[in-house]
Amino acid sequence: MKYDKVLLAHGSGGKLSHDLVREVFLPAFGNKALNRLDDRAEVSVPGTRLAFSTDSFVVNPIFFAGGDIGKLAVCGTVNDLAMGGAQPLYLSVGFIIEEGLEMDILKKIVASMQAAAREAGVDIVTGDTKVVEKGSADKLFINTAGIGIVEEGIHISGHNAKPGDKVIINGFIGDHGMAVMAERQGLSFQSGIASDCAPLNKLVAKMLEVTRDIRVLRDPTRGGVATTLNEIAGQSSVGIVLHEKELPIRDEVMAACEFLGFDPLYVANEGKLLAIVPAEKAEDILAVMQGEKYGENAAIIGEVVSDHPGKVVLKTAVGGRRIVDMLVGEQLPRIC
Amino acid sequence: MKYDKVLLAHGSGGKLSHDLVREVFLPAFGNKALNRLDDRAEVSVPGTRLAFSTDSFVVNPIFFAGGDIGKLAVCGTVNDLAMGGAQPLYLSVGFIIEEGLEMDILKKIVASMQAAAREAGVDIVTGDTKVVEKGSADKLFINTAGIGIVEEGIHISGHNAKPGDKVIINGFIGDHGMAVMAERQGLSFQSGIASDCAPLNKLVAKMLEVTRDIRVLRDPTRGGVATTLNEIAGQSSVGIVLHEKELPIRDEVMAACEFLGFDPLYVANEGKLLAIVPAEKAEDILAVMQGEKYGENAAIIGEVVSDHPGKVVLKTAVGGRRIVDMLVGEQLPRIC
Ligand SMILES: Nc1ncnc2c1ncn2[C@@H]1O[C@H](COP(=O)(O)OP(=O)(O)OP(=O)(O)O)[C@@H](O)[C@H]1O
Ligand SMILES: Nc1ncnc2c1ncn2[C@@H]1O[C@H](COP(=O)(O)OP(=O)(O)OP(=O)(O)O)[C@@H](O)[C@H]1O
Ligand SMILES: [Mg+2]
Ligand SMILES: [Mg+2]
Ligand SMILES: [Mg+2]
Ligand SMILES: [Mg+2]
Ligand SMILES: [Mg+2]
Ligand SMILES: [Mg+2]
Repeated sequence: MKYDKVLLAHGSGGKLSHDLVREVFLPAFGNKALNRLDDRAEVSVPGTRLAFSTDSFVVNPIFFAGGDIGKLAVCGTVNDLAMGGAQPLYLSVGFIIEEGLEMDILKKIVASMQAAAREAGVDIVTGDTKVVEKGSADKLFINTAGIGIVEEGIHISGHNAKPGDKVIINGFIGDHGMAVMAERQGLSFQSGIASDCAPLNKLVAKMLEVTRDIRVLRDPTRGGVATTLNEIAGQSSVGIVLHEKELPIRDEVMAACEFLGFDPLYVANEGKLLAIVPAEKAEDILAVMQGEKYGENAAIIGEVVSDHPGKVVLKTAVGGRRIVDMLVGEQLPRIC
Repeated sequence: MKYDKVLLAHGSGGKLSHDLVREVFLPAFGNKALNRLDDRAEVSVPGTRLAFSTDSFVVNPIFFAGGDIGKLAVCGTVNDLAMGGAQPLYLSVGFIIEEGLEMDILKKIVASMQAAAREAGVDIVTGDTKVVEKGSADKLFINTAGIGIVEEGIHISGHNAKPGDKVIINGFIGDHGMAVMAERQGLSFQSGIASDCAPLNKLVAKMLEVTRDIRVLRDPTRGGVATTLNEIAGQSSVGIVLHEKELPIRDEVMAACEFLGFDPLYVANEGKLLAIVPAEKAEDILAVMQGEKYGENAAIIGEVVSDHPGKVVLKTAVGGRRIVDMLVGEQLPRIC
C-alpha cells in the first residue's frame, strides 16, 4: 500500500477505492462470495426462516482493553442474530472513515474483525467504504449487518416471557462500559477492567441443545441489564424481579462504578446475554452454560412474575425493593 | 414527540432511544417483522440463492433536487441487489446522527426512505440508531443493507462480459453528481438539473423477462460510467469500446460539467444501470427498457471487444480514439 493515511480519494469509487479494497479489505476478509467484487454477494442459505440484523458502531476510543471497534462490530451483529436462536452465517461491513486515518490503524481493526468473524464462524461477504473530510466524522464508524438461519421449533422473542420463568445471565455485568470509560480516563491499565466483547452464538447453540424452549434471549448492550429487562417486561406484559445479591459484578467494576458514579445495571455489556427460560429447565441450561468459555460465571439472577406488568423490581441485598426503570437520558455516549 | 432536536440521549439505548424508534421510525417503516422490535428481524425467504449488499451514504448536502440522503440510501442498496438480477425483499437501516439534528429533518428523510421502499416493493425490517456529539459526524449518515432472492437460471456478474456483446445504458448520465454539485454551489434552481436517484429493480425484472441471458448489470455510481466499465473490463478480461456520439447526456448537465470542469463519464449516477448483453438480444432488451419509466432514454452506447483487454476506449465524435481510464484521485467527495 503506497499510502500511510486514508485519503479522500480512497472513498472516490475510483482507482484508490479499488486499491484499498484489494490491499486492505480482501486480504483480511477474503472468501469466494466477497472476492468476486460484484455489487452484492450471492450466498446460499437453506430453509426459509431468515434472521437479519444491523448495528452501527461509533465507540470512542476505537481501541480499549479487551477489544476495539472492529471486534465490537462483528460481535454485536453476531449476537443480535444469536439472540433469536439464529445461526449467523454472513456479514456485510460498511466503513465510514475520516480522511487522514492511519492505514495501520485501519489494518489492525480489519484484522480484528476477521479474527472475530472466524471465531464466530461467519464470513464477511460484502462491504462498502466511504471517506469523509477531516472533521466530518470521528476517525471511524463501522456498520455491520448480518443474516442467519433459524431452525424450526425455535421461537425466541422479547414477547415470550411468562410468569414463573427464570432470568439467567452468562457472567459479570458492566465490564464493557467500564473498560471504555477507564480507557477514556487514561486509567485502563490501573483499572484491570477489560471489555467482555465476545461472540455468543456458540454458547446459544449449546443452550438450544438442552431445550428449544428458551423464551427470550437478549444482549444487554446500551442501557445495560436494567433497560433490556424493562424492554422484555414491556413486550411480554410481565413483571421481572431481580435479586441484587445474585448479580455477578466484578469488584473492580463495582469500584469503578462507585468512583465514577454509575449504576452497573445501566452499564453496557458486549458479551453478555439475558436468557428467560422455563423454571424447570433453568438448572440444566445453567449447568451447560457454566461449561462454556463465555458462560463460566453464569447465574440465575431473577424471575418473571405476573405482578407489576411492565416493571422490573430489584430485591436489594438488605431486603428492600426498588423499581429499576429504563435508562433515562444519556449515561455513556459512544460506548459502542 | 417532545423534542424538536435529536439529543445525545436519543442514542443512549434507553428511554429516549425507544421513544425515537416508536415515534419516528416505526410510524414510517412499520411492518410485521420490524414492529416486534426484537434484536433482529425474522423474515421468510424461499429458495437458497440469496443476494446480500450494503452501502453507507454520507452525501452532502442531505437534500438536493431530485432526492435526499434517505431516498439515496434505499435506492442504492435496492439497485446493488437488482444488479445481480435479484428481487430485493428486505432492508436494514443504520442511522448515525449528529446531536442537534432537527427532528423535522429526520422525519422528512425517514418518510422519503419509506416512499422509496414502497416504490421498490421492499420492507425495512430492522434498524439501529446511534447519536454522536456535535462535531463528530456531519448531520446524518445512513447505512442500508439488503437481501433479495435470485431465481435459477440467472447468472449476472462483472466477470461475464464477452467479445461481441453490446453495452446499454438506461438513460442520461451525470444527473446525480451534477445535481448535488449545483446544490452545493447554490445553483440548483437555475441549473434545472435533478438527481436521477431511482429504484431500478422493476426495470431489471422487465429486462429479465426478455432473456435471462444478461451478462453484466452494474450501476455506475461513484466513479461514473468510466470507472464502472473499467471494473467490468478488468473482471471479464475484455476490452470495451464506447461511442461518444451515442452517450445520452442532457444539455444542462453537459453545460454544468464544462462550467465546473468535470467529465460526465466520471460523474456519479444513482438511477442508471449499464447492461452488457448478447448482441442478438440487444434490440429487444432496448425496446423493453424504452417502454419503462426508468428506461425511456435507454441507448446502446458501445460493445465488448477482444482487443485491449482490461481497457475502455472511447471513439470520439470526430473519429478519434482515446483510452478512458478509471477515476484517479477524488473528483466529488461525498456525492452519495
Ligand atoms: N470495506 C470493505 N470490505 C470488503 N469489501 C468491500 C469493502 N468496501 C467495498 N467492498 C467491495 O468492493 C466492491 C465495490 O464496492 P463499491 O462500494 O465500490 O460498489 P458499489 O456499492 O456498487 O458502489 P457505491 O458504493 O458507489 O454505490 C463490492 O464488491 C464490495 O462488496
Ligand atoms: N432507525 C431505526 N429504524 C427502524 N428500527 C429501528 C431503528 N433503530 C432501532 N430500531 C429497532 O429498534 C429495536 C431496538 O434497537 P437497538 O439498536 O436498541 O437494539 P440492539 O441492536 O439490540 O441494541 P444495540 O444497538 O445497543 O446493540 C430493534 O428491533 C431495531 O430493529
Ligand atoms: Mg445490538
Ligand atoms: Mg458500495
Ligand atoms: Mg441486542
Ligand atoms: Mg452501491
Ligand atoms: Mg442496535
Ligand atoms: Mg453498484
